[in-house]
Amino acid sequence: MLELRLVQGSLLKKVLEAIKELVNDANFDCSATGFSLQAMDSSHVALVALLLRSDGFEHYRCDRNISMGMNLNNVSKMLRCAGNDDIITIKADDGSDTVTFMFESPTQDRIADFEMKLMDIDSEHLGIPEAEYHAIVRMPSADFARICKDLASIGDTVVISVTKEGVKFSTRGDIGTANIVLRQNTSVDKPEEATVIEMNEPVSLTFALRYMNSFTRATPLSNTVTISLSSELPVVVEYKIAEMGYIRSGPHTEVLIVLLYCKN
Amino acid sequence: MLELRLVQGSLLKKVLEAIKELVNDANFDCSATGFSLQAMDSSHVALVALLLRSDGFEHYRCDRNISMGMNLNNVSKMLRCAGNDDIITIKADDGSDTVTFMFESPTQDRIADFEMKLMDIDSEHLGIPEAEYHAIVRMPSADFARICKDLASIGDTVVISVTKEGVKFSTRGDIGTANIVLRQNTSVDKPEEATVIEMNEPVSLTFALRYMNSFTRATPLSNTVTISLSSELPVVVEYKIAEMGYIRSGPHTEVLIVLLYCKN
Amino acid sequence: MLELRLVQGSLLKKVLEAIKELVNDANFDCSATGFSLQAMDSSHVALVALLLRSDGFEHYRCDRNISMGMNLNNVSKMLRCAGNDDIITIKADDGSDTVTFMFESPTQDRIADFEMKLMDIDSEHLGIPEAEYHAIVRMPSADFARICKDLASIGDTVVISVTKEGVKFSTRGDIGTANIVLRQNTSVDKPEEATVIEMNEPVSLTFALRYMNSFTRATPLSNTVTISLSSELPVVVEYKIAEMGYIRSGPHTEVLIVLLYCKN
Repeated sequence: MLELRLVQGSLLKKVLEAIKELVNDANFDCSATGFSLQAMDSSHVALVALLLRSDGFEHYRCDRNISMGMNLNNVSKMLRCAGNDDIITIKADDGSDTVTFMFESPTQDRIADFEMKLMDIDSEHLGIPEAEYHAIVRMPSADFARICKDLASIGDTVVISVTKEGVKFSTRGDIGTANIVLRQNTSVDKPEEATVIEMNEPVSLTFALRYMNSFTRATPLSNTVTISLSSELPVVVEYKIAEMGYIRSGPHTEVLIVLLYCKN
Repeated sequence: MLELRLVQGSLLKKVLEAIKELVNDANFDCSATGFSLQAMDSSHVALVALLLRSDGFEHYRCDRNISMGMNLNNVSKMLRCAGNDDIITIKADDGSDTVTFMFESPTQDRIADFEMKLMDIDSEHLGIPEAEYHAIVRMPSADFARICKDLASIGDTVVISVTKEGVKFSTRGDIGTANIVLRQNTSVDKPEEATVIEMNEPVSLTFALRYMNSFTRATPLSNTVTISLSSELPVVVEYKIAEMGYIRSGPHTEVLIVLLYCKN
Repeated sequence: MLELRLVQGSLLKKVLEAIKELVNDANFDCSATGFSLQAMDSSHVALVALLLRSDGFEHYRCDRNISMGMNLNNVSKMLRCAGNDDIITIKADDGSDTVTFMFESPTQDRIADFEMKLMDIDSEHLGIPEAEYHAIVRMPSADFARICKDLASIGDTVVISVTKEGVKFSTRGDIGTANIVLRQNTSVDKPEEATVIEMNEPVSLTFALRYMNSFTRATPLSNTVTISLSSELPVVVEYKIAEMGYIRSGPHTEVLIVLLYCKN
């Protein structure tokens, strides 16, 4: 039996909005660690990895590991029916081929339940290598989203170059060229407004803006984004959330990680 | 001669927005009682009944009963030209085949008049029976609108069931099933936030969500909606307005009623 | 060498949004006086004349007169990448066939540059006659925009008539007729809310609402619009800006004029 109660239900809504463009069908895996998903987009260029740690749930019961295949568009349709303040409970009986999402309004006057058939989905489990990256850029997620959107109006690909001067995003299209340079900036009022560049060696990599713009759909999940770059590895675009409304305490500061992974 | 002066002109704008989706052409009937409309939608499933009592007008002159046929889409186009604070006057001369809508800005610096040709429309007058209903649900109109919108993303029809536990809205579609349960709730800060259920006997009826969603276009007119259900009668979805900006006093507390009436 | 630094970069964004619908390609002319543009729309009915006086720039260096042909849609795409608080610098080297737009964020942490190829555009220079007009109406630009939008839902042309009573905007369409009358009104809280009518002789002229609605795209540039009417001359619709963020002083109170000019 599975029963996961998430006080900050709006988080799950945002997660689905973030990933449903990239992935159509995927298995949600439930274990003692947490509620997770790993899936490639249909063109096998990007990998979405998501983990909501069990710590982040008010109540987390998962008697045995279970993998539940769902169409993310349908899950998103159901979650859109949840109010932003609703408590969401995910329930599944052992051996059942359905999953139930239950939404409770804060005052308990409105209780909604949505039952959905599960699907069988073949999934290849791709490990994301623990690796040393040439450069890691942490910046406000809204700034990264704005840059990707702006450059997409000029060209199709972005070159991300990290030097000791800063990080440069460049594109080229029919109407001209564009370069946006951000300098390291840590003297800000709030830590999430900082742009922090850790560089082991200079790196310059090219990516499709279409994918970067899909990734930025996760912007509402976190104030900051971390971009890890290496010439030998896919880029990792990471949105971490430190708070899920109900955190019991524990060794992890982040309870949700959305990791987007794109081949160069 | 007809001359009706409505201080709260935005009300007439909202009324037209509410009903123009359901009804294309209709007769506005003017008598000593008030300004009214009764019309069926083109598929003869829903009935719209509207009454703006004469009490609600600052000035109400209607020398003899008159029926004015109008295309509601055209009326809506003209009313969209009125500012939200404008005073609206409806004028028609005896025997004339036109009606004039006059909009005055509160400071009188801007006066607009729109003249429109009247149409001949055959209208069957359908009485709405004064009847005993099995159950009457009064709830915040925004909640009802949200439920109808949410369920329409899952299925095509809604089953509304009233029991002593509360009112349940259910649907079923390709992606699964959904149930939303509201309990009676009268311990709220403002009376219009209450959900009040009057039940004589349990009732469970099925309606097309398409119509329910058309009805909810009247949501801006009133904070509450009243749904009257009986297994032998069409459902009545009622939006009442107690204030029209200028009320002289009188026996009626409501001066505007939009009544939507849908066969099961 | 050309280098123009504009502290209030959002102004340039608004200018492009205002004129890019009317004119596809145009020459920006740069001289000691300022940064200007004069172009006809493709159907040769409307003339756009724009002048940003050199006074309005923080830094204005223009070694010799230069005419730079640009596709306004492409310029607009680039300017949309500038933040609303960004400082914009326009740069061109002598003899170069490119222009560079540079955007600096207020804190200098983000610097973007966009390079665009220039085009060769034949331009006829049309003088706008200094003339005596029958009537000049100055009114809030938002009111003028609202009137043009409202009337366009009824008819295709507007008759603007000025008499000593006020200014009347009229249209006629399939669904009826509409008249909007504004009276002179100078007893307002803020001078930009006034409607001021200077009339030498009554005038009544007809214009295509499509053009008037294109002109009103300049509304965000100025709180007031001035409409100059004469039966022998094209109408002049003028949006003036007194402030560009950085004004050194000088004989002119307006530093930006967008002038729209429409044949009757």
